[in-house]
Amino acid sequence: MKTKTLLGLSFLISFSSFADCGQKKYALAIHGGVGYNANEKQKMVMVEILKKAHEQLKGGASAQDVVQSAVETMEDSGHFNAGKGGTRTSKGTVELDASIMDGKTLAAGAVGSVKDVKNPIRLARMVKDKTKHVFMVGEGASAKAKEFGLDMVSTDYFVSSAPMMMTKEKFHYGTVGAVALDRCGDLAAATSTGGLFGKAPGRLGDSPVIGAGTYANNKTVAVSCTGEGEKFIRASAGVRISSILQYTDRSLKSAVEETLSLVKELGGDGGIITVSKTGQVVTSTNDNMPMPRGFVRENGVVIQND
Amino acid sequence: MKTKTLLGLSFLISFSSFADCGQKKYALAIHGGVGYNANEKQKMVMVEILKKAHEQLKGGASAQDVVQSAVETMEDSGHFNAGKGGTRTSKGTVELDASIMDGKTLAAGAVGSVKDVKNPIRLARMVKDKTKHVFMVGEGASAKAKEFGLDMVSTDYFVSSAPMMMTKEKFHYGTVGAVALDRCGDLAAATSTGGLFGKAPGRLGDSPVIGAGTYANNKTVAVSCTGEGEKFIRASAGVRISSILQYTDRSLKSAVEETLSLVKELGGDGGIITVSKTGQVVTSTNDNMPMPRGFVRENGVVIQND
Repeated sequence: MKTKTLLGLSFLISFSSFADCGQKKYALAIHGGVGYNANEKQKMVMVEILKKAHEQLKGGASAQDVVQSAVETMEDSGHFNAGKGGTRTSKGTVELDASIMDGKTLAAGAVGSVKDVKNPIRLARMVKDKTKHVFMVGEGASAKAKEFGLDMVSTDYFVSSAPMMMTKEKFHYGTVGAVALDRCGDLAAATSTGGLFGKAPGRLGDSPVIGAGTYANNKTVAVSCTGEGEKFIRASAGVRISSILQYTDRSLKSAVEETLSLVKELGGDGGIITVSKTGQVVTSTNDNMPMPRGFVRENGVVIQND
Repeated sequence: MKTKTLLGLSFLISFSSFADCGQKKYALAIHGGVGYNANEKQKMVMVEILKKAHEQLKGGASAQDVVQSAVETMEDSGHFNAGKGGTRTSKGTVELDASIMDGKTLAAGAVGSVKDVKNPIRLARMVKDKTKHVFMVGEGASAKAKEFGLDMVSTDYFVSSAPMMMTKEKFHYGTVGAVALDRCGDLAAATSTGGLFGKAPGRLGDSPVIGAGTYANNKTVAVSCTGEGEKFIRASAGVRISSILQYTDRSLKSAVEETLSLVKELGGDGGIITVSKTGQVVTSTNDNMPMPRGFVRENGVVIQND
């Protein structure tokens, strides 16, 4: 890890685990939803995340720490439909969902329909690490967040009255997600969302469903999805991609395309980002819909805004 | 459908769809949880369900109607950890989960953490048929139930103070489930549970997670799981069995065993019931744990109490 700035060092030591396992390859990919082109502020947030992730992964940070950090930054930015930027339900409430999965152990944490937790992805991580459960929803999930000392917020915190939220279509699918391969060869995935604009209270999409919106398995791939969550649940999108790789000799690209075709067949649309156990990054959307995304590998940052 | 008793007829016409597609083969399998032997009352409920399902399937009822009917009967019996027999959380509340999936269309409905709905499986079916959503939890799900005119109940309704609930171990995993193949060649699966005894409020297991505790796909198989839900979620149990069949030439038995091995590798245990698109019924548990179960095919009823 050589010399670091004071700022970098204090950031790094806040991570829970560090092991430079020596693998040269590493990668992180992120998305900011599907069906729109990122504005300048959103692009800036994404570039900063990719640069930071590059340093983290290079320094030996774990994939699960890096995907959590990336998603937290997007949650806090207020520029995406997740965390601070979470959209409103039909009743004017904000209900957030998130999940994280560790490909090494298949350990996972997921939370749904939480109204008062600043960083749902952080709560998902705590559910994974600190409870015997995987999936918690509603007030029970919020009670756990308080127990863990996480930052709690009131409805005022959410910026969903800001101009970026004015058009229904534009932010329909503004979920955020991250997938990573670290220098130990471990994969992880994380996804966070405010859900569909105007959704019924209590509705969950694919983001908190392990195997649908989020999946990671060191044998195969890490996946985060965005789009019409109902169709991604019915397609078991995340684990389908993994299973095609696990049980056939087909390519990651082919697995992603089959899964998006199934989503389309079910009447849905959306996008998927993946990183494989060998560090291959594949991202795709239905019908070439735009999906603000970017990725970083050992040789530098790439941003794609369609 | 020939002659029917008045009772049989009035029951049958309450089903939403009828089409005797002429296929001779049909099958239904049910389970009442894992890790215990059924008592006489439980066995009686299961035998009645199997006999009724035989008539229903023979008469051309759809797989999804028959699995829903079977699960509703177990919910209403008060003899299983589902519906009326739902167990208590650590706070003394009852929070129920259920889901249903139609293998023909991959349409699905799931509800989690509902406290006041008499038949969670009926609500799951309504979410599937009457909303654009798949997965609803908590008060939002209950609000939908009221909107649909479903029977609502207070905490008094639940019998979890009865003697059968006295021992923690015995009813740890008393989830119920059903899988069916109908005469049109359509598959369906349904699962309902009160969850883990003493679970944290808001905790969801695999029962409401499509692809984990419940899965159905006409291309392959219908699956319902019971056991330590967290491990079944991490294993993506239901869709894993389907994917092994879809993407390899392996047998259903081998797919079920691989999935139970993965659950065990993750530190969990439980049981699985399946019916394939050809009407093959395979059921299994980890370490030969008892799992009250039974199945019916065109040639009659079989009950197994380990």
